Amino acid sequence: MTDLPFARADLATPALVLDSGAMERNIAAMAAFAKAHGLALRPHAKTHKSGEIARRQIDAGAIGICCAKLGEAEALAEDGVGDIHLTSPVVTPGGIARLRVLAQRIRLSVVVDHPDNARALSGCGAHLFVDVDPGVHRTGVTSPEAAVALARAIGEIGGVQFYCGSEQHVAVAADRRAVLAEKTAYLRTVLDALRGAGIAVPVVTGGGTGSFAIDAELGVLTELQVGSYIFLDREYRDCELGGPVFEPSLFVDASVISANTHGRVTIDAGLKALATDAGMPEVLAGAEGRYAFMGDEQGAVIGDVLPGLAERIVLMPPHCDPTVNLYDRYHVIAGEQVVAIWPVTARGRGS
Amino acid sequence: MTDLPFARADLATPALVLDSGAMERNIAAMAAFAKAHGLALRPHAKTHKSGEIARRQIDAGAIGICCAKLGEAEALAEDGVGDIHLTSPVVTPGGIARLRVLAQRIRLSVVVDHPDNARALSGCGAHLFVDVDPGVHRTGVTSPEAAVALARAIGEIGGVQFYCGSEQHVAVAADRRAVLAEKTAYLRTVLDALRGAGIAVPVVTGGGTGSFAIDAELGVLTELQVGSYIFLDREYRDCELGGPVFEPSLFVDASVISANTHGRVTIDAGLKALATDAGMPEVLAGAEGRYAFMGDEQGAVIGDVLPGLAERIVLMPPHCDPTVNLYDRYHVIAGEQVVAIWPVTARGRGS
Repeated sequence: MTDLPFARADLATPALVLDSGAMERNIAAMAAFAKAHGLALRPHAKTHKSGEIARRQIDAGAIGICCAKLGEAEALAEDGVGDIHLTSPVVTPGGIARLRVLAQRIRLSVVVDHPDNARALSGCGAHLFVDVDPGVHRTGVTSPEAAVALARAIGEIGGVQFYCGSEQHVAVAADRRAVLAEKTAYLRTVLDALRGAGIAVPVVTGGGTGSFAIDAELGVLTELQVGSYIFLDREYRDCELGGPVFEPSLFVDASVISANTHGRVTIDAGLKALATDAGMPEVLAGAEGRYAFMGDEQGAVIGDVLPGLAERIVLMPPHCDPTVNLYDRYHVIAGEQVVAIWPVTARGRGS
Repeated sequence: MTDLPFARADLATPALVLDSGAMERNIAAMAAFAKAHGLALRPHAKTHKSGEIARRQIDAGAIGICCAKLGEAEALAEDGVGDIHLTSPVVTPGGIARLRVLAQRIRLSVVVDHPDNARALSGCGAHLFVDVDPGVHRTGVTSPEAAVALARAIGEIGGVQFYCGSEQHVAVAADRRAVLAEKTAYLRTVLDALRGAGIAVPVVTGGGTGSFAIDAELGVLTELQVGSYIFLDREYRDCELGGPVFEPSLFVDASVISANTHGRVTIDAGLKALATDAGMPEVLAGAEGRYAFMGDEQGAVIGDVLPGLAERIVLMPPHCDPTVNLYDRYHVIAGEQVVAIWPVTARGRGS
């Protein structure tokens, strides 16, 4: 490994690059927003999978983090994070055994969406949350009655989770607000049913980078699970988010490896370097052109102003979470210097 | 880590599973095919990124392997592979310095597609191949004249590379044969120009799992770079390949984590567990239904015969190379027992 600091231009590419100044400003802006609105902040670490970043979020006022998977939570607990909420059910016998061990070590909560799973988790040491399906049919109970039955099977619940995943990327703010208002009206019905049955709901957790400003206004969630705001990928950059302004802080640097055809160059970042589920990355620097995937290992930049062989292109990832999951490390920059290298602590810890 | 062997049903999911018996039969079938046709076999390791698998390919008769990236080659050389051909140009000053070091250690060759790069690589210790663009404009020289000029800049060339990437997945064999015959006629023109200029071409390397049987028949390539045949993903399973019959050997095992909606279950394998560039995985066992992506961490299986909470689903990945690149290890099975765990040696080594 080269000694730090070194020039960003000397990075072996493709490389995941993090502008820590921009990220810190994003962390501070979201923390201030949550505080101003009296909401607890529990950022989702499935976005960054990083102990370094989780600690900065907690130092700025977050009460803990969310993880999507048990292995991700184990890796971040191992790296010193002491308060984790698991946003997916843990249902296999092997997973439940690991969850019991983890709950001895940190403050842990986990969502449940079936009474059988509630019974299997009895006495596991984690706080159990009733996961409510907002209509996407991914996870969660599907009616107020099922929420009450599940809460009774749990006993004392940690709270309710309500995550509107499909609504986060509705591009026009007014459209997003309308659908979230409708979903939130349903959430109120579920909460009324629980409270009407004498069940205390200390926490209502949910929300994302596409919805937090609307969620705060609607006033039902007590805790925000926002993830992508720290990086602001191309997908969220293209949404009218509302609330504080975030800056892009995550980039993929690539190099031109072939320049034999007029109007295009080939770069060393393909579909092993950029998530492909959310369209194209944007070319931010080094060329004026558009990116096109060219297989596993390469992409093209097609345009009028193109760099020469071995020169650099800076890309804005289309979707940050699965792009980060391709890399073992963040190259942290200050200006055009690489000043630190942080591991992607929980990379690949999907199980 | 659990002691080996253990039941496949006890794997933490999502898990990458390798049927080594099926893989060994695929390796033997391709080795026999190459031998019968008098072709050198140099399988592409960008598919598997594994020292264990590369060694088995070489033990079965391969003369060495291909790697797509320098970091991949470094990782596999470190793991004991002694003969590697790099199928992408190495052009940055940092990359060239690393390539010089690697060439001291193993027998190394690398493609070149520009005279400037040939001059930068002069005396690097690696054999330099003229990369010829078959018309996809990814890498390679774009005319017979440019091939001759590049070969002169190189001096003594290791050979010529001609990889028809876009043609590998043409589903109907007759259509694929027609386009490959046309491309190969162009390759002949390039080779004639080189030989007419007094340039010896000891090796003509190229081909893939979609083209090797046709390439053998056309009789211009001397070396095959086939990769995916060892796993046979859904994309290639859907092509009429010709030649020997290969078996699917690579799977992703997943668990049902939610089963609250009629006609569908949610499993713990989403777009961090399966490459998304080539359509949907196929549900092979555990349910009768079709898979749909449900975000970063989950997928749905939609169908009539569905398993219950915590039960298993076996998926056939849509595209093996970028799916393997998501995982740190292969779980090697014999029957329904996990008998070995192999690292994905060069996972994430894209730079």
